[in-house]
Amino acid sequence: MTTDLYIAAAGEVRLFEWAYRQHLPVMLTGPTGCGKTRFVEHMGRLLDRPVLTISCHDDLTSSDLVGRFLVSGGDVVWTDGPLTRAVKSGAICYLDEVVEARHDSLAILHSLTDHRRTLYLDRAGEIVTAPETFMLVCSYNPAYRSSLKELKPSFRQRFVTLAMDYLPPDREAEVIVAETGVDIAVAARLVHCATTIRTADEVFGFEPPSTRVLVAAARLIAAGAHELEAAHACILAPLSSDGALVQGLREIAVASLLTPGGTLE
Amino acid sequence: MTTDLYIAAAGEVRLFEWAYRQHLPVMLTGPTGCGKTRFVEHMGRLLDRPVLTISCHDDLTSSDLVGRFLVSGGDVVWTDGPLTRAVKSGAICYLDEVVEARHDSLAILHSLTDHRRTLYLDRAGEIVTAPETFMLVCSYNPAYRSSLKELKPSFRQRFVTLAMDYLPPDREAEVIVAETGVDIAVAARLVHCATTIRTADEVFGFEPPSTRVLVAAARLIAAGAHELEAAHACILAPLSSDGALVQGLREIAVASLLTPGGTLE
Amino acid sequence: MTTDLYIAAAGEVRLFEWAYRQHLPVMLTGPTGCGKTRFVEHMGRLLDRPVLTISCHDDLTSSDLVGRFLVSGGDVVWTDGPLTRAVKSGAICYLDEVVEARHDSLAILHSLTDHRRTLYLDRAGEIVTAPETFMLVCSYNPAYRSSLKELKPSFRQRFVTLAMDYLPPDREAEVIVAETGVDIAVAARLVHCATTIRTADEVFGFEPPSTRVLVAAARLIAAGAHELEAAHACILAPLSSDGALVQGLREIAVASLLTPGGTLE
Amino acid sequence: MTTDLYIAAAGEVRLFEWAYRQHLPVMLTGPTGCGKTRFVEHMGRLLDRPVLTISCHDDLTSSDLVGRFLVSGGDVVWTDGPLTRAVKSGAICYLDEVVEARHDSLAILHSLTDHRRTLYLDRAGEIVTAPETFMLVCSYNPAYRSSLKELKPSFRQRFVTLAMDYLPPDREAEVIVAETGVDIAVAARLVHCATTIRTADEVFGFEPPSTRVLVAAARLIAAGAHELEAAHACILAPLSSDGALVQGLREIAVASLLTPGGTLE
Amino acid sequence: MTTDLYIAAAGEVRLFEWAYRQHLPVMLTGPTGCGKTRFVEHMGRLLDRPVLTISCHDDLTSSDLVGRFLVSGGDVVWTDGPLTRAVKSGAICYLDEVVEARHDSLAILHSLTDHRRTLYLDRAGEIVTAPETFMLVCSYNPAYRSSLKELKPSFRQRFVTLAMDYLPPDREAEVIVAETGVDIAVAARLVHCATTIRTADEVFGFEPPSTRVLVAAARLIAAGAHELEAAHACILAPLSSDGALVQGLREIAVASLLTPGGTLE
Amino acid sequence: MTTDLYIAAAGEVRLFEWAYRQHLPVMLTGPTGCGKTRFVEHMGRLLDRPVLTISCHDDLTSSDLVGRFLVSGGDVVWTDGPLTRAVKSGAICYLDEVVEARHDSLAILHSLTDHRRTLYLDRAGEIVTAPETFMLVCSYNPAYRSSLKELKPSFRQRFVTLAMDYLPPDREAEVIVAETGVDIAVAARLVHCATTIRTADEVFGFEPPSTRVLVAAARLIAAGAHELEAAHACILAPLSSDGALVQGLREIAVASLLTPGGTLE
Repeated sequence: MTTDLYIAAAGEVRLFEWAYRQHLPVMLTGPTGCGKTRFVEHMGRLLDRPVLTISCHDDLTSSDLVGRFLVSGGDVVWTDGPLTRAVKSGAICYLDEVVEARHDSLAILHSLTDHRRTLYLDRAGEIVTAPETFMLVCSYNPAYRSSLKELKPSFRQRFVTLAMDYLPPDREAEVIVAETGVDIAVAARLVHCATTIRTADEVFGFEPPSTRVLVAAARLIAAGAHELEAAHACILAPLSSDGALVQGLREIAVASLLTPGGTLE
Repeated sequence: MTTDLYIAAAGEVRLFEWAYRQHLPVMLTGPTGCGKTRFVEHMGRLLDRPVLTISCHDDLTSSDLVGRFLVSGGDVVWTDGPLTRAVKSGAICYLDEVVEARHDSLAILHSLTDHRRTLYLDRAGEIVTAPETFMLVCSYNPAYRSSLKELKPSFRQRFVTLAMDYLPPDREAEVIVAETGVDIAVAARLVHCATTIRTADEVFGFEPPSTRVLVAAARLIAAGAHELEAAHACILAPLSSDGALVQGLREIAVASLLTPGGTLE
Repeated sequence: MTTDLYIAAAGEVRLFEWAYRQHLPVMLTGPTGCGKTRFVEHMGRLLDRPVLTISCHDDLTSSDLVGRFLVSGGDVVWTDGPLTRAVKSGAICYLDEVVEARHDSLAILHSLTDHRRTLYLDRAGEIVTAPETFMLVCSYNPAYRSSLKELKPSFRQRFVTLAMDYLPPDREAEVIVAETGVDIAVAARLVHCATTIRTADEVFGFEPPSTRVLVAAARLIAAGAHELEAAHACILAPLSSDGALVQGLREIAVASLLTPGGTLE
Repeated sequence: MTTDLYIAAAGEVRLFEWAYRQHLPVMLTGPTGCGKTRFVEHMGRLLDRPVLTISCHDDLTSSDLVGRFLVSGGDVVWTDGPLTRAVKSGAICYLDEVVEARHDSLAILHSLTDHRRTLYLDRAGEIVTAPETFMLVCSYNPAYRSSLKELKPSFRQRFVTLAMDYLPPDREAEVIVAETGVDIAVAARLVHCATTIRTADEVFGFEPPSTRVLVAAARLIAAGAHELEAAHACILAPLSSDGALVQGLREIAVASLLTPGGTLE
Repeated sequence: MTTDLYIAAAGEVRLFEWAYRQHLPVMLTGPTGCGKTRFVEHMGRLLDRPVLTISCHDDLTSSDLVGRFLVSGGDVVWTDGPLTRAVKSGAICYLDEVVEARHDSLAILHSLTDHRRTLYLDRAGEIVTAPETFMLVCSYNPAYRSSLKELKPSFRQRFVTLAMDYLPPDREAEVIVAETGVDIAVAARLVHCATTIRTADEVFGFEPPSTRVLVAAARLIAAGAHELEAAHACILAPLSSDGALVQGLREIAVASLLTPGGTLE
Repeated sequence: MTTDLYIAAAGEVRLFEWAYRQHLPVMLTGPTGCGKTRFVEHMGRLLDRPVLTISCHDDLTSSDLVGRFLVSGGDVVWTDGPLTRAVKSGAICYLDEVVEARHDSLAILHSLTDHRRTLYLDRAGEIVTAPETFMLVCSYNPAYRSSLKELKPSFRQRFVTLAMDYLPPDREAEVIVAETGVDIAVAARLVHCATTIRTADEVFGFEPPSTRVLVAAARLIAAGAHELEAAHACILAPLSSDGALVQGLREIAVASLLTPGGTLE
């Protein structure tokens, strides 16, 4: 895996490490697919700590995080949830897209994010103090400005915030080449196409294409697809279901793909 | 079964196969009844993989997808859900009408659709990595423009998107003949009737008639029904319950059925 | 029982039978009490298939339809629901007032209404293919135009639609006589009263009186009630609780009951 | 008990009895406290059938009506609900304030209120046909015109409707005397007070005082309370919590209590 | 305990006792903290009946009131709830703040509040008739005029209503002295302060300070707090979190505390 | 730990202690992170009582507070919740952010906050009277003025209210130095930066930075981060996700950090 190519500026690495050393929780913000998950995985390797990922969603209860009673052999036995397991084992616990979680589920995190660094398992009657190596990391995408759900300011203030963004074009093209083996010219054209659309994003108001979709397009190209065909399936079609808009985007894409490195195959 | 007649342009077959080879998930879009389900079944035969279909609905929980604890012999035993079974067996897992699902249920799919290709069964404490042959396919109908439910852009970007549409008239008539044995002239008249209504769709704003309803009408005709009677019961009546509108549609239908191949039986 | 008198024009009987032979599901539409349930019972006798009726309501879950796990002898045992029982036994399964059901519960019907004719019991891990004699019939009343609940067009297109209506006055009076033994003149006066109100329906906006309420009124008359007393209790009083409106209806009723066959008893 | 004094005009008794003989369900309408419950109890004695009363409320599920599975000795055993017990025993089943019930719970009544007279216990897999002596009676108060909840017209048409009202003043005073032993002049004054407020009801828009509250006031008077004190506690205070309005009502009450039979004690 | 000092005018005591003798349920109304709970406790001592208090809240189900099935030794055993225990033991059952309860939970009370005096335990299949000494008492605060929740008029008419209010100033000061031992002048100043705010209540629209908060303030003063400090913490600060408003109230308080008996300590 | 540095003016300590001696519950109000939790911990040490903290959230039921029945060895056994444990052991029970709790869950506290000081465990059939040393403390942040959730006035009147605020700048800087070891000049600059933003708070409408975030920033600085880098990650970035606003704040921060003690490192 070439994951480490995703790593952004050294600044984020340093800040993350300082936060880890100071026992401060971290909040990663940035657009979807800009590499937040890979960054956490990278930091886990760097700090030599396992990363335990929890994908947040509307139905995630605090019991899903901390654990619940289960019947076993006729008795009811407490079973730790992933958060409790991460605290006990001193792992990095990564709550992906934390804004999706039911906000009442997040109250359980309060005592872990301040000077107490403690998890209160009220139902189990247990109190777990986090070891030195435990770290809590959350991520969310603040670009969903219209979302009904917003993290509470008091919650966000509990974290050191690292704002991430797309890779610079050169780095992004390198990642695509390393991940898919396509020619650097192809990668550059795909990045140019994405950058054009990202710039137009404020006008159109849709989620811009991520590095992930460029890699997907490059993979289809590596497998034999035409560039435009791959760009349409991976970059343009997911953006909108409005026919006229897709057609306009297609024209942007055609122009972009033609621009940097000559003719389409 | 004459299913394979439904297969659309070779382009979709190629793109689907490339996505399969590159371990990329696929999203099929297109109007209801244009053949998405049959296309997936066709690709399953072509790639020699079983297809496991899950019909999405509002009440589909992530537990319904991944599994749950059930009591057996006094103990609580984990039981895999259909998604987990599909991942473990390396099947093609087809989530039909994914837009209908509770969107929080879909968060469980994130780690399966990126480079991790992994299913985290938090409640069972199990991590399942998908074998090479596992593929995730979803479908939805973007024509429900007024729908309150929309897939999140970040979700849609996780998939290679294949946009499907109705068959061209000649192919559609061939399918009807192959499926029902009616005369090609009858099939052509039914297709003509449907095409006329589909063209009027933007004005009337209802879901246009699918190939499926034409096959149903042809079956009734094969069984002895009058063309207009069958067209009314299968094509017109389901479109609307507004009497005036149905009457207008009926006039379109009569004209359509009379046009291509002479008089009504 | 004189049920068969309710049977409408032969057209509906023929179309229903053809749909049955062609394995197509049927949707019955029409006003409340026009005889949809009796029609299905009649077709069950004609086709020699048992009819399994499910009254739909807001609280009907897909588990209520297909089955659930129940504890028995300490273990959890799967128990088929009425839909599953109907599929396995090849019966006619009649979903009465399907528009009342939670629409997410209806997704379970999709694979039964297309070429698959298959029921996927995801929770039980079982796949049930319908035998030749299985038929799915639904009914709903499109007159509730103001209803918040509407069947999705894609759902309605899965069915052959048979639009039913009130019996013609002569037939309706015959049914009343056959069911209750009242004099034909009495029956004709009740039908005349109902027809007058049905005509006024578009103005007043209430659900018009059904054949069922005329039969109820005739029964009270046969038991000794005055015509106007019976008409008030069975036809007028249930229409509205607005005193002024009921008084207006009462005048219509008095006039109607007096018109066809002379003086009131 | 002097319950039978509550019985209204003979007309309602006759119609109820005819409906019983003809196996038709009955809907009682009328203001709160006008004697609907007592009327059903009276008819039960007259027809020599037990009355099983179910007070409807928002949380009443169909399981509460028909029954549910309960664990007993390790196994799951079906336990009939009150409706099922009433059907099996051929009792009069009285659903008090049916409009309060969750309307989806009422769908279970459909097959009991038409020619089928059958209860389908889908979950238990049992079908119960009602014996000759079973009768379903519902009540509701249509005066709650502003209520968000309204019975569906198609539901109301399933019943013979008997509209009840307050007793005429003389009868009401007789009831009060018989129930409480107060002097007829006291009773007449209380009735006069209530009648005055009932007449003002359309202006003030509150629920008018019922016979029940007059009996309560008379009881307090019989125990030693002043008439005005009792009238205030039982008749006026429950009407409104708006101080000015209560004061206005108090003046009406004082005037009423003074009018018919001389001075206040 | 000096509880009995709270007892209001003899009128309420007499009416409550008459209602008890006549088996009529009682509804206490009045502002928060005016002594409703203590009045019921006082009447329990006077009538020599235990008082069973149930604090009503949104989540109170009818099962919480009447009982439920619990698993014990492998079997399911019915366990009486507090209402059922109160009925069976002939206690005074006090539903505090009944307007807070889910109104559908209150339907269970209907048969206890009319001539039946009976509790129907549908789920347990048991019918409990209340003994002579059972009495149902409810309380609510009608001052929450803006509340979305209002008791239904038909529910309120089931009760003899006793409207309570704050004690007259002299009595209130006596209570404060008796409860806390502060000087009568201090108590008078606190009452004067509260009375001023209560008078301003209609303008400001907040819940006025109760006797309870005056007692709390007097306790802090007895413990050593300054009068203004105690008045701020117990009387003013809980009224509002609007800084400007609290400042205005503070000025009222300062003026009030200075007025009756000289300078502040 | 240097926790005690957080302690605010002696006034709050005295009032809290008097309330404890007088058995009065206390409500702490003030902005997030101003030291409410640490103040309660400090008072626990001062009064030599253990503090039991419960973080309130939307999903907190009264069962979570008082306890529930759990299955153990086949039987159902009552298990005390944290509130019950606190009452029985005479601890200080601290409900953090009580406004977040479901307000219906709070009704269970009523009998603990008045003269009864009693917890009614209706489901367990137990009544627990609090020992002398039990104290109930709640906290909430009234600055969420726009919140849909507000504590009911009658609830707030049950408590002695102690209004807390940020520390004065000098004290706050001392706390930062004591907690993190940074230079007093650095701490002063961070406090100056925070004070500037707090003053701008009324204009911008976001939650102002707390002492907690200043300590976090100082920790990063102590670990090697630039002041501006640390201030951005801990103070500015969590305030808003509006790019323009963050830029404006950044300018305020730069100016603030430059002002008190010279140049940035």
